[in-house]
Amino acid sequence: MIERMIRAADLAGTFVFAVQGGLAAIGAGFDPVGTLVLAFLVGLGGGVIRDVLIGATPPAAMLDRAYPIVVIAAAGVAWSFAAYVGHVPALLLTALDAAGLGLFATVGAEKALDRAVPALPAIFLGAISGVGGGVVRDVMLNTVPRVLYADIYATAAMLAAVIVVLGRAARLPRAALVVAAALACFALRMAAVIWGWQLPHG
Amino acid sequence: MIERMIRAADLAGTFVFAVQGGLAAIGAGFDPVGTLVLAFLVGLGGGVIRDVLIGATPPAAMLDRAYPIVVIAAAGVAWSFAAYVGHVPALLLTALDAAGLGLFATVGAEKALDRAVPALPAIFLGAISGVGGGVVRDVMLNTVPRVLYADIYATAAMLAAVIVVLGRAARLPRAALVVAAALACFALRMAAVIWGWQLPHG
Amino acid sequence: MIERMIRAADLAGTFVFAVQGGLAAIGAGFDPVGTLVLAFLVGLGGGVIRDVLIGATPPAAMLDRAYPIVVIAAAGVAWSFAAYVGHVPALLLTALDAAGLGLFATVGAEKALDRAVPALPAIFLGAISGVGGGVVRDVMLNTVPRVLYADIYATAAMLAAVIVVLGRAARLPRAALVVAAALACFALRMAAVIWGWQLPHG
Repeated sequence: MIERMIRAADLAGTFVFAVQGGLAAIGAGFDPVGTLVLAFLVGLGGGVIRDVLIGATPPAAMLDRAYPIVVIAAAGVAWSFAAYVGHVPALLLTALDAAGLGLFATVGAEKALDRAVPALPAIFLGAISGVGGGVVRDVMLNTVPRVLYADIYATAAMLAAVIVVLGRAARLPRAALVVAAALACFALRMAAVIWGWQLPHG
Repeated sequence: MIERMIRAADLAGTFVFAVQGGLAAIGAGFDPVGTLVLAFLVGLGGGVIRDVLIGATPPAAMLDRAYPIVVIAAAGVAWSFAAYVGHVPALLLTALDAAGLGLFATVGAEKALDRAVPALPAIFLGAISGVGGGVVRDVMLNTVPRVLYADIYATAAMLAAVIVVLGRAARLPRAALVVAAALACFALRMAAVIWGWQLPHG
Repeated sequence: MIERMIRAADLAGTFVFAVQGGLAAIGAGFDPVGTLVLAFLVGLGGGVIRDVLIGATPPAAMLDRAYPIVVIAAAGVAWSFAAYVGHVPALLLTALDAAGLGLFATVGAEKALDRAVPALPAIFLGAISGVGGGVVRDVMLNTVPRVLYADIYATAAMLAAVIVVLGRAARLPRAALVVAAALACFALRMAAVIWGWQLPHG
């Protein structure tokens, strides 16, 4: 049951990140092939980095054909949206990015714990999984990755991973934990963007 | 027999990509050490990414001393060429890149199938192997990777991988398949460059 | 005994690279979170790349909690230094980078040999480990990696790896070898910077 839910969360993260990457590519003036390529890199990047780091190779995204199908569908959604709506609202890009961040950070921490990675590294692996796709996107688009300058970004990803790690240590119900962790990360990131929250700086 | 041919194709791809990377480094004003470093990164990048993704670590390029020897020879060829000819024709850079693309995409799909990766992910692994070295080069040179804006590029790599996957499913002779796949990718990519082909856009 | 020394050298390399990455982030105008993120990427980047390439996953940096603790301490040191001193001397950045280069190149060659990687690839793995963190830093900061244009840089990393490989083949005392290799790389790199050494160019 929980395995199916983790896979669903991973695919959902793949979908939102792939739509986000596709829209970012369209916004940067790329054509359909570039859009599809960036959708793949952003949608699958974080999960592939996670799987390589925990030694789960070939990565799930390579073995399970649901992943490429989800990415192709996401690229189609991004292309259709841009064609019909005519522009890409910045807040939509931010919200999709925040949703993918929360889903991947949660799934990353879950998978690390399942592979018997200890608590502290599991938190880092979750955070890396969350931010990985966005780093790949920003490096490919030749910009400084937002994880370096957005205050509540890696922090939000780490929050999701901490909730998973502490919740599993406390034996809380896992399905509820996955939902709570992803939502908490999404909410924190969006609140930080909307109200301009920053960490206290010295 | 086919194993030796795959290794030869992998070494040939390494050689052409390394020459290409070396010439790109010279064109960007780098000195011999920078040229050698970029030749290594471009020559070995795609294959190392492929081997990490299919879990074949340490990568072939690390275990088999033919790979570094080929790269060093390629850097020497690039340096000598630039020294004697005095400039680096853009079409030569494109042709070397297209040859490496076809060889690595073909070898990538072959190696993925040999590791029991299913058909669809094997196609993606082939494409990633093909475009990987070029992405590494363009990121290192701080430019947007051409895979994002060149229409018939990831498409050509995927063509090579599709030929391998379908041909092996149809039990066609493998040596002929390897040659046909690499040549088809090279020809498609070069035709697209020479005649300005683009995919139909909405 | 030697295992503990290798781990200490790996942690020392992590510390100096993390301080360096933190100071580079502060110099580039990033806030504490960006500083911490870059400290992580630079401190752990080379070692993670090394462990992925030799198939030692999850990487040591993920399993051993000393690594994140060292990075967090290093980010604190970087932040405190910049706050009290008010600026970041360029020579300090160069020296920290050179120290990390030597330590990681040495540890990388050691670990590759321990995994039965042959001599020539062990030298390349050492060099990749040494330069990896700096490449990650420069790509994240959207600049051309210095390994491509600094003459005595990859060369210095390779020197450390060659000393380890030849010294172990000659059965020299390993602890002394580790110290000698890291120091030789550091000294060569610093001498090259201070006196403007370059490799002879055709």
